[in-house]
Order: sequence, then C-alpha cells, then structure tokens
Amino acid sequence: MNVLVINCGSSSLKYQLISMEKEVVMAKGLVERIGIEGSILTHKPEGRDKIKIEESMKDHTDAIRLVLEALVNETYGVIKDMSEIGAVGHRVVHGGEKYSESVLIDDEVMRALEDCTSLAPLHNPPNLIGINACKDLMGNTPMVAVFDTAFHQTMPDYAFTYALPYELYESHGVRRYGFHGTSHRFVTAAAANMLGKNAKELKLITCHLGNGASLAAIDGGKSVDTSMGFTPLEGLVMGTRCGDIDPAIVTYIQRVLGVSNEEVDNIVNKKSGVLGISGISSDFRDIEEAAEKGDKRAQLALDVFHYRVRKYIGSYAAAMGGVDAIVFTAGLGENSPESRCEICKGLEFLGVKFDESKNNFRGKAEFISADDSKVKVIVIPTNEELMIARDTKEIVCG
Amino acid sequence: MNVLVINCGSSSLKYQLISMEKEVVMAKGLVERIGIEGSILTHKPEGRDKIKIEESMKDHTDAIRLVLEALVNETYGVIKDMSEIGAVGHRVVHGGEKYSESVLIDDEVMRALEDCTSLAPLHNPPNLIGINACKDLMGNTPMVAVFDTAFHQTMPDYAFTYALPYELYESHGVRRYGFHGTSHRFVTAAAANMLGKNAKELKLITCHLGNGASLAAIDGGKSVDTSMGFTPLEGLVMGTRCGDIDPAIVTYIQRVLGVSNEEVDNIVNKKSGVLGISGISSDFRDIEEAAEKGDKRAQLALDVFHYRVRKYIGSYAAAMGGVDAIVFTAGLGENSPESRCEICKGLEFLGVKFDESKNNFRGKAEFISADDSKVKVIVIPTNEELMIARDTKEIVCG
Repeated sequence: MNVLVINCGSSSLKYQLISMEKEVVMAKGLVERIGIEGSILTHKPEGRDKIKIEESMKDHTDAIRLVLEALVNETYGVIKDMSEIGAVGHRVVHGGEKYSESVLIDDEVMRALEDCTSLAPLHNPPNLIGINACKDLMGNTPMVAVFDTAFHQTMPDYAFTYALPYELYESHGVRRYGFHGTSHRFVTAAAANMLGKNAKELKLITCHLGNGASLAAIDGGKSVDTSMGFTPLEGLVMGTRCGDIDPAIVTYIQRVLGVSNEEVDNIVNKKSGVLGISGISSDFRDIEEAAEKGDKRAQLALDVFHYRVRKYIGSYAAAMGGVDAIVFTAGLGENSPESRCEICKGLEFLGVKFDESKNNFRGKAEFISADDSKVKVIVIPTNEELMIARDTKEIVCG
Repeated sequence: MNVLVINCGSSSLKYQLISMEKEVVMAKGLVERIGIEGSILTHKPEGRDKIKIEESMKDHTDAIRLVLEALVNETYGVIKDMSEIGAVGHRVVHGGEKYSESVLIDDEVMRALEDCTSLAPLHNPPNLIGINACKDLMGNTPMVAVFDTAFHQTMPDYAFTYALPYELYESHGVRRYGFHGTSHRFVTAAAANMLGKNAKELKLITCHLGNGASLAAIDGGKSVDTSMGFTPLEGLVMGTRCGDIDPAIVTYIQRVLGVSNEEVDNIVNKKSGVLGISGISSDFRDIEEAAEKGDKRAQLALDVFHYRVRKYIGSYAAAMGGVDAIVFTAGLGENSPESRCEICKGLEFLGVKFDESKNNFRGKAEFISADDSKVKVIVIPTNEELMIARDTKEIVCG
C-alpha cells in the first residue's frame, strides 16, 4: 500500500508518497507560493534528480492536481495511476480536546476540525483546504487526519491547566495543548527501540529543536507535559518566537510602542526568538557563524536558547521524578553538535555523562552519552511523514 | 540605634521600629485605607496589646504623622521623641538596573527612582510618596532605600534576557529583574548559617511562597535566576496572579472577551492564580480547606501550584548544575506542611530525602529533610523588615 502524506500551509504544501511495505519514500516534494505569482513545484522522485515545475496555481486544489500529475508522470512519476495511492494522510495542527488519536476523515470530523479553527486560526484553515482539495480530486480514496496535538492529550490536568479564570478553559478552551506531537511520538518509539526497552518502562525527555522547538516529558510512553502551550508560541526560544516571557510584557509593549493587539502578536511570533536577540537571522546556522566570529548578541542568543532548554530538561526531570534518557531531534537537535554539547553542560547532577567524542556527527541515530552514563543521551532523526503514513495505513487497513 | 522600617503601598503602610543592638522589634503596625473613608492605624507596641486608631488620613503624610505620634505617645508609644529614630529604611520595589545594593537616599537617588516608575507603575509611586512624606516630617533623619530587585542584579545576561527584539531591552528596559530580593537574601544568609557553611560554597534554591511567590537560584551566595521577571506577574502560580502562561493567551483574551489592555492586566494580576482556578479564594488556607472537603477545583488549584514549584526546583537545579539545599519561606512556605510535602514529592532523584515526621510545624527555622539527605530541605521564617533595618544601619553608620 502506498500512502500520500500531505502537509498544507497557508501558501505552501509538502508531500511524500511512501510505500508502506518497506516504509520507503517513493517521491517527495514541495509546492511554494500557492495563490501568489511565481508558484512552483519542486518534485523529487527517489533515486533520481529533482525537477522544478513553474506553473500558475491559484489555490490548493491546483497545487494538489499538479502534485498528482507529477506522481503519475511518465518521465518523473513513480506510479502508473492514482489507484496506486491507497490512502492520504493529512497533518492537522490542532485537534483540540476531541482528538487524542488519528482519525478517518468523514463529514463529522470535518465539522469538528472547523470548530477547532478559533484555536489555530493560522494553521487549521490551510489544513482543511488541503483535505477538501484532495476530496475533490481523489474521490473515494480514504483520508486520515493526524494531529500535532493528539499525543499530548494524555497530560494530567495539573500540567495542562493555566492559573487563569477557569471560565476561560470551560468556555474558550484556554489550556495547554502542545504541538509537534507526531515528532515526539516518533522519537519516543525509536528511543525505546534503541534502548532495548518497552516505552512503558521509560522516562524520556524529547527535545524537538528546530525553527519551531518544543520539549516533552514522556513517562511510560505517554506525554505528561510539553513546552508549547495554548499555541506554539510558549516554551523554548525559537527562530522568531519568544517562548516564555512575563505575560505582562505583552500589554506593556502595546502601551509603550502604541501598537495593536495584532502587531504585538506579530512581534512575539515573527520578530522575536534568536532573530530578536541577535538582530541577525532566525536561522541557527547564521547565528552560530556570527557567534564564532565574535558577535556578542549572536552569542547571547545561543546562550539564552541553550540555557532555556537546559532548564526545561531539569523541570521535566522533576515533573517525572527522574529521567532515563534525553533525546535530541529535528533540524538543530539532529545537526548541531555544538548545541547538544552546550545544553548538556551542567546536567551531570542528573546522571548525564556526555561523551563529546561521540557527538561529532549530523543526522544519524546514535548515542552521545558515555557507555556508563546513568541517563542516556540520544540523537534520533525525526520522521513525522512516516508516522503520519503509519497511522494512515493502520486506520485504513485496520 | 533604632531604625524605622517603612513599606508603603498605594493606600496602606506597614512599619516596624527595630532596636538594632539586639535586633528586636519595639513596635510595629499597619495603616489601611489611606485617602479613603475609614482610614485606620493598627499599632502594636512589643509585649503590649495592639490599639486601633480610626482617624481621617487624606494622604501618606497624614499616615506617617500618625505613626510617629503613636511611636512617641505616652501611653502606647515606645520612644520619648523622634530623635530616638536614628534612620529610616524604605522598601522600594523597583531599582531598575541602576541599583544592585541598598543606597542612602539623596536628590539624585530620588530622581533615579522616579525614572524607574515606568517599570513599576503600581509599586514605585507609593514608595516615593512615603519617602517624601518622611522627609517632610523627619527633617534630617538619614533614609535608605532597599530594593526588591537589587539582590537579583547578579543574574547573568542569558538568564535575564528575553527572546524579544533587543531594542525592547535597550530602549524600554524589558528584561527579567526579579523581586522579593530582600527575602531571598535574608534566607540565603540564614540557610548558610544553619548549614554551617559560607554561602559562597552553596547552591541554594529559595522558595518564597506567599500570596506573591517566587523562587530563586542562589549560586555561591549570588542570585543567578529567579521566577518573577519584568514584573511580579511571571513565574509561579500565586494568590491572584497567573504566573507563566502562553503569552499568546494575553491577546487571545483581549479578542475573545473584547476587553481592553488594562482589563487583561487586571484579569491576569487580580482574577487569576489559585483564585482563578478554584473560583473560591486567593487565600491558600481557604483553598486547602475546600480541597479537604472534596472541592475538585480547589484541589486542582493546589496541584497546579505545587507542580509548578516542583518544576522550577528542577529547572534551577539544572541552571546551577545541582543543588545543596532547598529553602521554604514566607506565608505558605513557613506555615503549610502539606504544601512543603507535596512540592518535595518526586524530588528523590535530586537527592532529596524528605522526612515527614519533622515537617509538622509552622513558622520555625528547622530542617525537614532526613539527616542523611544529600540535598537539605529547610524552613526559615523570612524577615524582610530586619534585612531592611540591617542595610539601613550599615549604610548610615558605615
């Protein structure tokens, strides 16, 4: 069975066609600038060169039509016709409190997703558009929604409740949801595998460190806390997001800068994070480079980022009453030996014995703690698309 | 030498007259409803009954005049005349980045304090009014300002910098300052004393848990991190303050409730915390009582509060690379064995061995960890007034 995995943004779309027998990617690609002048599809059939198709795409339906054409194309396609796509798995950002697992999409699910839109006004609408576009083009092919929030629905109430008037939770759904759940779930299973244990026996802290970044405390295979909250703004310092700040700063900024509610949202989401501190870039590679050349604010941005991750690790160890392994994943977690090393400095009191000699690599699944480290430290490349495809297959095939 | 300690709020004023030879309180009291109908002074000479004086007080000058009259009164006074007050120590909430220590008040200091008003619009103005009122009434008596923020000025940049556009720090002073510094400093010295060590050798986590609450990480006697931030709103769950929340919630509340900037500030500062979750009270005693009777939201409020403190303890252990002792102080820290016990649950991985049999007391300085606990747990009643008086005497007498 082949599963098409779709991840729709507001003007972009990522896809992978995965053959589930051996879990191999047959083709993947990216559509950019949907509905904007200069829309382009970059398509990469496995083992062959990528090709770029520049063609006007006025909406997501146009984009998905082009993707499907590319997949069946005689020259650079990978399947003969659309009947070879057994199911479609859609990434959906917000499942609210309703979905703690992936679900087969039907009319009721669509209505529930529309209800979640107020909680994820930036993310859910493009996800819904993508699902509708696929329905239009693929008729009866079964589709599954896989939620970023679902894995964290096991959090206990004392971890997801904010100390706000309780009516805000009851009437407006204000609580911690957490995101990146598909990634945290993927590396949890992979870590248990590498440790030769059942996830149920383990206390893990999974660090998804990319341009968006979150940590999760995974006790017995279940997420019991995570750093992103009501939205993906809370928690760690990110590329352009501020993460944790004194909430009083939000209204203070409005007053001293004389800006609107929307503009403050824009500042804390798009102009903050390591970009805000460094003034240089939201890309950690640019910041690491500038810091190496002696830029003080770039170095400060890295220091603040690492310090925050280290503190969260300590707090999640306290949340679980200890930790067996710390897992690094996503762009920075997989590819920055420097960050992994800086974050682990000073965690010896937890039982972490970091082995720098093992740490000098990028993008592989490896242990980076000493053999006799009480708490293991592991790097695991994440694979959200595969996780989505696995869920999709399981739900469709039973 | 006798030192008068003054702590001015917007419509209230607390005072203590302390004889510094043996550090004993000669009298203390509280003025309430300054500038409001029904203003009242409650005065308590040491070892004698308290008396209440109801008298119209239109401003803080009236209030301080009444306090001074009470102190020299033939019946319930404790000194013959005002010349027996050698100096006045004023609690000042915000010293900005300028003051990392207490300071003798002169015209330059007054100007600097006025400059800090934008950072503490609720707190600094009454502090300034109190200082001016004392100047009017006490002529040349030397006065000292003791800042809530000063002790935390040793925080490294990576601990006090928010991941916001750097210009907000440079132009508007947006950074972590921390508060309750006088209390954290007092218990740090007392803890070192009880541990028979120099504070320079110790890593301490001090938990000031009252209606306002904050934790501090004290490494080598210096504050290296603290949970309150730009304002006293950040960090722990408090009586009516929310502490840490996703900053996106602030603008979300404005939108869904259609309320102003000021009203959101009011919600997160006055209607949140354990009051917000429980819907019952901001007083932990009321909430503990309701929880015992089975009220679920009261229990949830306590659970959220304890969980947050526990996580901060873990995060500060990570910040310092370990911890030697955890100190509980202030209203709840000194007087709630239940809270101390709940917070320490699950901290065994840090080396904490809590001894429940030692924990059943209120308001004393005692160890509550087992004798062989690697990390000591200590209760220490705080005494901010004495700390202010000590600083005042030292600065005035040299």
